[in-house]
Amino acid sequence: MRLLYHLFLSPFCRKVRVALAEKGLAFELKNENTAERREEFLRLNPACEVPVLVEPDGAVVCGAGPICEFLEEAFPETQRLLPGGPAERAEARRLVDWFDGKFNREVTANLVGEKLMKRLLRQGVPDTTAIRAGQANVRVHLDYIGWLVERRNWLAGEAFSLADIAAAAHLSTVDYLGDVPWDDHRPARDWYARIKSRRAFRAVLADHIPGVPPPKYYADPDF
Amino acid sequence: MRLLYHLFLSPFCRKVRVALAEKGLAFELKNENTAERREEFLRLNPACEVPVLVEPDGAVVCGAGPICEFLEEAFPETQRLLPGGPAERAEARRLVDWFDGKFNREVTANLVGEKLMKRLLRQGVPDTTAIRAGQANVRVHLDYIGWLVERRNWLAGEAFSLADIAAAAHLSTVDYLGDVPWDDHRPARDWYARIKSRRAFRAVLADHIPGVPPPKYYADPDF
Repeated sequence: MRLLYHLFLSPFCRKVRVALAEKGLAFELKNENTAERREEFLRLNPACEVPVLVEPDGAVVCGAGPICEFLEEAFPETQRLLPGGPAERAEARRLVDWFDGKFNREVTANLVGEKLMKRLLRQGVPDTTAIRAGQANVRVHLDYIGWLVERRNWLAGEAFSLADIAAAAHLSTVDYLGDVPWDDHRPARDWYARIKSRRAFRAVLADHIPGVPPPKYYADPDF
Repeated sequence: MRLLYHLFLSPFCRKVRVALAEKGLAFELKNENTAERREEFLRLNPACEVPVLVEPDGAVVCGAGPICEFLEEAFPETQRLLPGGPAERAEARRLVDWFDGKFNREVTANLVGEKLMKRLLRQGVPDTTAIRAGQANVRVHLDYIGWLVERRNWLAGEAFSLADIAAAAHLSTVDYLGDVPWDDHRPARDWYARIKSRRAFRAVLADHIPGVPPPKYYADPDF
């Protein structure tokens, strides 16, 4: 069986989980506390980071970016996550970088990192300046999502792509804290409602961290 | 003509410059001070980051990762930067992530960022703790490079790949400061000597920042 080492609420692991589900590839999840630096896990990935995918034939693929490219190359007959020609694919990859880089630094790290990860990993006190910055920044990114989907069907163009998955993976972790001001950003909300309706997204929306319940509307496409 | 917006000593821009040269694709360089946030540049890349590639047909590709994947897809008849099948390509991409992520955080940012970029961009005083960390960390990474090339011809396998380009792009910026302890790491030095001998690497080794000359051995493959 295909095995994915992951951490709950890691947007990078969520991106891979949704990508696998979109492609209809069955897999098992194994939670990996990377802070423990288990020797067995270090042999799989010397960088000691999740996600790591172990294929049924024993092939090991490390890192969310390499895993998604691997899935596209190894299973070309399944749902494409990078549609179109080289220029269209470059646009999808630009937006994946936007969410995994810029959004992650400006929003996810400031909100999920400060409010939740520090508490779960006992890494000290939340930085309230960072939290305020994250709350301001998320609005700019929601505006950008709205700007894109008023011009295109999905974020990177006419077809659903890895750009949508990356954006939704990050937003879904911030939304777990109830920190996405959906009501003020209708176009982004309408896009996210379409994402939530996809079967491939159900599993990540069903995640529950013990002691930290998500908002009631969390998994509801009609929110 | 193909145009690359870049910054001198950005390892990400160097990776793209070498990738273009390896593929034999002619291009012009345009230095872009992203701190100025020029409106014309923001229209090309709303993230306001280099590198940005503008193709002769007007196609715009943003970001080092998307540019390298674009070049592989758009010019398949040129030198391959990601050789082999999906698993071998995943290994090359894992190492690209290693150098662009882990090495960049642990070494490049601590040395080039603190010692040179802060001075050039007038962003305050170098953090000596960070510099000491960078000087210790570079040794660990040189050991890892040595470990790899004692088992493989190039970093990711038998064929030269984007993993070698990414690693050498970072090391070449640190080496510009004379901060790579080559003498204590012979296998890594032998690998870097092979890199320096490649024609595609000559242009980046010829960069000279006004007022900050590189070490005398900088461009010499026999160092």
